[in-house]
Amino acid sequence: MRYLEDLSPGECFTTASIRVDEADILAFARQFDPQPMHADAELARSGPQRGLTASGWHTAALVIRLVVEAAPLAGTPWLGLGVEGLRWPTPLRPGDELRVEGRVLAVRPSRSRPGHGIVRVELTARNQHGEVVMTQSPSLWVPCRPAAPQVPA
Amino acid sequence: MRYLEDLSPGECFTTASIRVDEADILAFARQFDPQPMHADAELARSGPQRGLTASGWHTAALVIRLVVEAAPLAGTPWLGLGVEGLRWPTPLRPGDELRVEGRVLAVRPSRSRPGHGIVRVELTARNQHGEVVMTQSPSLWVPCRPAAPQVPA
Repeated sequence: MRYLEDLSPGECFTTASIRVDEADILAFARQFDPQPMHADAELARSGPQRGLTASGWHTAALVIRLVVEAAPLAGTPWLGLGVEGLRWPTPLRPGDELRVEGRVLAVRPSRSRPGHGIVRVELTARNQHGEVVMTQSPSLWVPCRPAAPQVPA
Repeated sequence: MRYLEDLSPGECFTTASIRVDEADILAFARQFDPQPMHADAELARSGPQRGLTASGWHTAALVIRLVVEAAPLAGTPWLGLGVEGLRWPTPLRPGDELRVEGRVLAVRPSRSRPGHGIVRVELTARNQHGEVVMTQSPSLWVPCRPAAPQVPA
């Protein structure tokens, strides 16, 4: 288990990679983002992106999966408080292989709730060509290390 | 079809509502965000949220679905460029009914690509009790109205 005290700015981690297929892109899009560029391979071919692209929210969902599986805090549960700077500079396409790099930007104890703190992270997701398909800066709510039991002197 | 010229700051829209069940929450979580508070109803019951909560990325995916179906631009395709201020003030729980209000914050033509513009929107998603479960401010890439055919004078 890793806690707030174990994290410091500049720390980096890399996730495994995951491949996304046309069927995955269509299934997510039909359920959550049924615009033609994400949900209709044929219409997408003649569209401005010249082919099917994943919903940006599909990319975001795959990124969280890779980060959860990488378990940068080992088994410690963390909670996303919010996200700034969510961007999709390059679309994710069928056959792409997605991988995420994380970097700790800032670590501070909570002023209102002792025992917890806020960790700001930068996540950069790239495809197999190294092109950035998503960036975001989430703020995470992370527990401090539980106090050691008091031993009488 | 509605275009950039048809939008102005202050314009509002409301989506339909959608109900989320425990099975939906578990299915999304197991595929994309397999932390116990989202993916294991029993463990979640004894956790700090006192019950199962949806992944924030599930909430975001349901929000985009409601917005796409509400079609505030009618059939005009739009593209998400990025999002600021993504927050989840209250967790989404099994049985909740989600609805989204949208408000146009700013509209400006693109400096680099005539024929398109950028629309900044504020989205607020509430549950059936009126509690805010998500806010975000996306920037959308929206086409201008195509020029009318030139009629020789």
